[in-house]
Amino acid sequence: MGRITRRWPVYRYRDGRLSRRTDVLAVEEPLEIRLDGEPLTVTMRTPGSDVELAAGFLFSEGIISEAEDVHTAIHCGGPGTGGQENTYNVLDIALAPAPAVAFKSQQTPHSRNFHMTSACGVCGKSSIESLRTKTRFDLRTDPVTLPIETLLQLPDALRAGQEVFDKTGGLHAAGLFTAAGEPLVIREDIGRHNAVDKVVGWALLNGHMPLRGAVLQVSSRASFEIVQKAAMAAIPIVGAVSAASSLAVELAGDLGLTLAGFMRSSRLNIYTHRDRIEVEE
Amino acid sequence: MGRITRRWPVYRYRDGRLSRRTDVLAVEEPLEIRLDGEPLTVTMRTPGSDVELAAGFLFSEGIISEAEDVHTAIHCGGPGTGGQENTYNVLDIALAPAPAVAFKSQQTPHSRNFHMTSACGVCGKSSIESLRTKTRFDLRTDPVTLPIETLLQLPDALRAGQEVFDKTGGLHAAGLFTAAGEPLVIREDIGRHNAVDKVVGWALLNGHMPLRGAVLQVSSRASFEIVQKAAMAAIPIVGAVSAASSLAVELAGDLGLTLAGFMRSSRLNIYTHRDRIEVEE
Repeated sequence: MGRITRRWPVYRYRDGRLSRRTDVLAVEEPLEIRLDGEPLTVTMRTPGSDVELAAGFLFSEGIISEAEDVHTAIHCGGPGTGGQENTYNVLDIALAPAPAVAFKSQQTPHSRNFHMTSACGVCGKSSIESLRTKTRFDLRTDPVTLPIETLLQLPDALRAGQEVFDKTGGLHAAGLFTAAGEPLVIREDIGRHNAVDKVVGWALLNGHMPLRGAVLQVSSRASFEIVQKAAMAAIPIVGAVSAASSLAVELAGDLGLTLAGFMRSSRLNIYTHRDRIEVEE
Repeated sequence: MGRITRRWPVYRYRDGRLSRRTDVLAVEEPLEIRLDGEPLTVTMRTPGSDVELAAGFLFSEGIISEAEDVHTAIHCGGPGTGGQENTYNVLDIALAPAPAVAFKSQQTPHSRNFHMTSACGVCGKSSIESLRTKTRFDLRTDPVTLPIETLLQLPDALRAGQEVFDKTGGLHAAGLFTAAGEPLVIREDIGRHNAVDKVVGWALLNGHMPLRGAVLQVSSRASFEIVQKAAMAAIPIVGAVSAASSLAVELAGDLGLTLAGFMRSSRLNIYTHRDRIEVEE
């Protein structure tokens, strides 16, 4: 169970005071599913029950139709390590000789859930390492700071800008704000990554890139991909209404991004780079 | 705004009574993003701000680096229609001649967010039509019924089986239950689709497939993909703690799957095929 949660030192803000404590994060790690040695998909998942996850995915996609279609399932070392180190993040499924549903079926129009992947990336190297190289911007050098009261107002400001949520209760939102708490743009989507893509795309198309000094507020959890998208756009501060994953926190810490979560009226947790958040003690 | 929400007749259960009303659903539709005419990715999204969504996605993936890299963005008709009918679910981005970041970059190890897609599927034909052909099982013929009280207990039963959530507050869960409310398996994951894949994979590997007569309970929203995974496994009843998307409801209705949502202690909404749920009037 050690890989399902991870302990992390956070700053907790409650009743107007900031204190240090240890929080427990849900672990997020990539799983590369291979089919007969060929990379098929990568999913960000909580480690554990990996064989079930792969079997269920292959079944849902129509690639296998019964348990006997899976000949073996082996966690293998990635190519980057010469196969020496097993990260348990690569699972190779060998199909039985004549699966009831042919592998070809992944080429049908139905297989739109498949993720492309290259042979390495999530296996040998640490996934944070392999992803971090993408960012053009150095978030560490962003000197922006904001009062914690300003940050605490953003979930309400985001909610106030959600036109569709009130009607349906079914949408995520993402908003870009200045460090003074002024909204730049708010977008909703049924997918939380899409909501972030929309506000980043808005900034790009309207001359606001790079987003130095800005705050990204999301209505959802903070996952690895949310932090990655923020870092690509040079956003130094991300606030999430819900929990942060282990990989989100690690990536934010590495990149110099300030990450806050569990934002509820007058409470929040600061996971990384708390120096950008002003608290009167 | 007409395409962002959709009205749908539901059965609402409150205070021990079932009544008929009209609910507002968040619309979920696929968007196929093409790059210079070539299909690049498909995402399930809420229609609107599609150009921003595509631009933000391409920027986050490092394919474009500035607004000028996007030459044109055009909603185009799908091939299935001979280009006659524009569903506004296919967006073709033409890149400027020399983008700052080459398209090649999608082949790097970093591009694990890309979804494979074929040339058609989400464009000309209705997406429900094109997906429905996959299911081997006819859910309509599943005669299972269960008392509404049993269904209402499942969110608590799911939560009771979540080992990690209590520690982190950051995990989704999916559970398979019998029609008597007995748990078969409960799995957690940081991704709600992964949690469903895990319980389906468990069923497959342990001889419980097809899952006729079973109930899938999820801690999250009910999206198209959740309903699709249930249908592939022959699960006739799906309960969701949170909202259901338009496409989830339409697919469930078409396939003969009973879909309930907004499950809160003694309340829920039934979106489709309410005949499987017994209510004493």
